[in-house]
Amino acid sequence: MTDTACVVAGDVGGTNLRVAAVASDGTILHRLSVDTPQTGVAADIENAIVSAARTCIEAVADTCRPAGFGLALAALVNYRESLIISSPNLPELNCHPLAANISRELGIKVVLENDATAAAIGEHWLGASAEADHSIFITLGTGVGGGLILNGDAFRGADGTAGEVGHICVEPDGVECGCGSHGCLEQYASATAIIRMAEERGLAVDTPLTAAGVYAAAKSGNTTAIGIFRDMGRYLGLGLASLVNVLNPELIVIGGGVARGWDLFIDSLRTEIAARAFSYPGGRVRLIRASLSDSAGILGAARVALDADQ
Amino acid sequence: MTDTACVVAGDVGGTNLRVAAVASDGTILHRLSVDTPQTGVAADIENAIVSAARTCIEAVADTCRPAGFGLALAALVNYRESLIISSPNLPELNCHPLAANISRELGIKVVLENDATAAAIGEHWLGASAEADHSIFITLGTGVGGGLILNGDAFRGADGTAGEVGHICVEPDGVECGCGSHGCLEQYASATAIIRMAEERGLAVDTPLTAAGVYAAAKSGNTTAIGIFRDMGRYLGLGLASLVNVLNPELIVIGGGVARGWDLFIDSLRTEIAARAFSYPGGRVRLIRASLSDSAGILGAARVALDADQ
Repeated sequence: MTDTACVVAGDVGGTNLRVAAVASDGTILHRLSVDTPQTGVAADIENAIVSAARTCIEAVADTCRPAGFGLALAALVNYRESLIISSPNLPELNCHPLAANISRELGIKVVLENDATAAAIGEHWLGASAEADHSIFITLGTGVGGGLILNGDAFRGADGTAGEVGHICVEPDGVECGCGSHGCLEQYASATAIIRMAEERGLAVDTPLTAAGVYAAAKSGNTTAIGIFRDMGRYLGLGLASLVNVLNPELIVIGGGVARGWDLFIDSLRTEIAARAFSYPGGRVRLIRASLSDSAGILGAARVALDADQ
Repeated sequence: MTDTACVVAGDVGGTNLRVAAVASDGTILHRLSVDTPQTGVAADIENAIVSAARTCIEAVADTCRPAGFGLALAALVNYRESLIISSPNLPELNCHPLAANISRELGIKVVLENDATAAAIGEHWLGASAEADHSIFITLGTGVGGGLILNGDAFRGADGTAGEVGHICVEPDGVECGCGSHGCLEQYASATAIIRMAEERGLAVDTPLTAAGVYAAAKSGNTTAIGIFRDMGRYLGLGLASLVNVLNPELIVIGGGVARGWDLFIDSLRTEIAARAFSYPGGRVRLIRASLSDSAGILGAARVALDADQ
């Protein structure tokens, strides 16, 4: 009855909360997505996760009994202690003992991971960076997240907060960032940044203005919209060139919704890396698109749970 | 006769060439320093290294026979292949088969390492970062070098060029850098940068102007000189804050001649990190001075040779 090794995996976003039962080979056995409770109460999010996890566990009961639960969140996470340090999108989770509580409810070990690091792990396990020992994953969405794979493993730093590529400074006196600094990459290479630049340049292509609207305008030949994606690529290149010099990666994997604008930003991104990074590491690093789409985080969280079980 | 395990270690700079015989516990058994040949001919440097190494090997012949030779250079080094990719100070060494030639001459294995990475390894072995698993070493001299210790080991990246902390961009349209980029940290936090800022601000404290002269003026209360060190600390903080967000280190170890200005730049450095880095990793990272001084590179090169022998 329980021949297959499997785990529960979750990816908690500000809007959706996705949970799945995942086999040890990465097969998604059962998955579901529910709305993330918007009550501002941590227990409500916790209960929604527990309920979704129970549904997954029951759905695969004939095949396997999950050995652990990996949970990815858009938060600074102390990986070793499985604690949420800071959760900007769902501040009710700050310092909330989410892992301990869910573990008690379900009777299985729960491990937390930053969602971008989880996506980096997913891409390294089954996706775009599977062949590389040293890669930088960057996800361009509402914000800019990142995760590092170094020496073939997720690199988390002293506490588990490493990988915040979106908070490299690319413009010292630039736009104020939600993190408290100014000029972070996130303010120049996210969907939010594209909308801000469009507003600043008087581009009115849809109401309300969206990054998808700016993308469509650029594809139709609107030179202002084209310039926005070009500038976004330039800033992205500026930040990544610094990381190429510091980390000498084989691969940079770019995911997230804004990566759909690849053909509009990749040339200026490459040009900026060529102009700024040392020629040897700059010339050898390959830039590619993420391949697992929305599943990267869930699969990475599953991998984290499988590794924690060993 | 040969009870003690030992290695030969070298540190090749643009001015001096230092070679030592080092025991496996880090004791320097014999050391010497000679001028680096300025003929522009790679073979002359090679011969000078071989000659100094032979002197060291003979000096310790009663105690030990060196098992290997670790050689640190101010160059981009392909660590795995022991090749010199790019040597800005001694361009005659670019792509020169230095390790293979010296190995043939001396009959022992030769391993190359970037000098700042070697210093990081030395400080981690026997110096300031011995207790930390994750540290960033930065050396402020004529240029700005760096080395990373991650998960308790030197991190070299895909080819061995990682750690170039001096070539993080801190001012996108800033001063042109020798690496071909603009606004690299090296242009704002090195002895060269201090002299440039002093010239730009009309500070004439010695002829020719030196970083030591600017330091002395600042210690005497000269407000222009004080401002230069304060600005240098701010730029250093700007670059290091990005790395704190990306690498979540326990320690940042600062060495090199300009670190003598510690009391003049440390406050603005700390203020900038506090203002720009995420509060959790920014609050936990400790900034300390390197403790091995000029010996860090030699000791790190020795450690590299000892590790290569295992």
